[in-house]
Amino acid sequence: MKTLSDRHTLRVYIEDTDYGGLVYHANYLKFFERARSEWAEKIGVGIEWQKANNIFFPVRYARVDYLRPARLHQMIDVVSVIKEIRIASIIYEQHIHPHTDPDEILCKAEIKIACVDFDLKPKALPENIFEKNFVD
Amino acid sequence: MKTLSDRHTLRVYIEDTDYGGLVYHANYLKFFERARSEWAEKIGVGIEWQKANNIFFPVRYARVDYLRPARLHQMIDVVSVIKEIRIASIIYEQHIHPHTDPDEILCKAEIKIACVDFDLKPKALPENIFEKNFVD
Amino acid sequence: MKTLSDRHTLRVYIEDTDYGGLVYHANYLKFFERARSEWAEKIGVGIEWQKANNIFFPVRYARVDYLRPARLHQMIDVVSVIKEIRIASIIYEQHIHPHTDPDEILCKAEIKIACVDFDLKPKALPENIFEKNFVD
Amino acid sequence: MKTLSDRHTLRVYIEDTDYGGLVYHANYLKFFERARSEWAEKIGVGIEWQKANNIFFPVRYARVDYLRPARLHQMIDVVSVIKEIRIASIIYEQHIHPHTDPDEILCKAEIKIACVDFDLKPKALPENIFEKNFVD
Repeated sequence: MKTLSDRHTLRVYIEDTDYGGLVYHANYLKFFERARSEWAEKIGVGIEWQKANNIFFPVRYARVDYLRPARLHQMIDVVSVIKEIRIASIIYEQHIHPHTDPDEILCKAEIKIACVDFDLKPKALPENIFEKNFVD
Repeated sequence: MKTLSDRHTLRVYIEDTDYGGLVYHANYLKFFERARSEWAEKIGVGIEWQKANNIFFPVRYARVDYLRPARLHQMIDVVSVIKEIRIASIIYEQHIHPHTDPDEILCKAEIKIACVDFDLKPKALPENIFEKNFVD
Repeated sequence: MKTLSDRHTLRVYIEDTDYGGLVYHANYLKFFERARSEWAEKIGVGIEWQKANNIFFPVRYARVDYLRPARLHQMIDVVSVIKEIRIASIIYEQHIHPHTDPDEILCKAEIKIACVDFDLKPKALPENIFEKNFVD
Repeated sequence: MKTLSDRHTLRVYIEDTDYGGLVYHANYLKFFERARSEWAEKIGVGIEWQKANNIFFPVRYARVDYLRPARLHQMIDVVSVIKEIRIASIIYEQHIHPHTDPDEILCKAEIKIACVDFDLKPKALPENIFEKNFVD
């Protein structure tokens, strides 16, 4: 069984904060998306592959819990786990913790993405993604 | 019983879209937030009041369902309803529809905000918000 | 001579601020862009017209001076003036002031946009834009 | 003479693009700001130092030229050079090129930042920044 999880480290910049001095709540969704995109690049299904295969991955739902604030210039890790793979969708569980403290969860989310073509019609996920990356 | 709902109309701009030509998923959270802020202004508990009362409203969770895409330059309505008021938190149900078609739901969300002071400690919501605005 | 200027009013939201409590500098470019888009819609060369005519307006340069900060929930006006129209480009002068005080300039900019087709090749601006809107 | 330049590499994500499929023009200012922040961290005048010294660096002007578009998932380098240091301001020249091609300039900018205290009053830059980092 190959890995079903990934980790991406990033820094919080001024653009990510709001007047409260902490990360603006919508921006955690950007962090989660960056982590999914980096993971997709790593396993060979990044944006070039998506364009070549007429595939687009819109978010279907996001359930986000804001537990503790991330702070300006903090290094944070986004940990991503694939919880479920369906014919034309993937459910991720993702969470963010300080780079230096894996046990302090700042934000966690369950996010479902669909697999569609450029006309937004559902499209089965290619089997070879899974054979190469996720199946024993 | 006074009104527990509000409506805010806005336009989708280029900044809100991504390479797919539609609204980037994180940006719907901005639209929901704008609507809550406008509502707060209307009923007298806007940012000046919040500063004067040492109150800050961070988002505790967001459950967002993306049903149909909002498009560039589209006029959209954000409809906000207060579902529940607790001692130091409020749960909103919000949805977005095209300004010209109230029946076509593009995106809907349940969002919980907390009431805290500027040190992020929970703080009871002032009773007079509710007397003035929401109680019969 | 028809009008060569326009005004657009908007409110500053939490998403626009950063940890300093004021508007994040990059976001003024969004405000300027919203104002240009609203103006384009008004005179009949909005996004639907652009798509139908295979036209796209990328920004070529922006010269932005930040004079005084815009504040959270402040109502601000973006005033746009067309300074120069060339074959395949337009130069705008834009500034932002508090809605209640036209004399207090918060931010001003000179912004040049090009007229290109969807392959990013320069394209002459249609003459009828100018006949309809800007020529005596 | 110590170095007066720095380089920061980053990737373009979906959040950075707009409906044209390329990076939204305002977002290059975010990339420039990230690069300045990373540089400040490296030389010991990052956000913790700024807070401890009651210093804040607002942008006074930005002159940005958009030469060629950056593309989704592209790795890009931000090269930053200090052009001039005054008593309470710094002028940077910054440009962005593809990580794999230093000669293809995508975007360049001259950006002036001020040095102010948290009440936005001008404040002289501490001499020891320059002794440690920039003076021979």
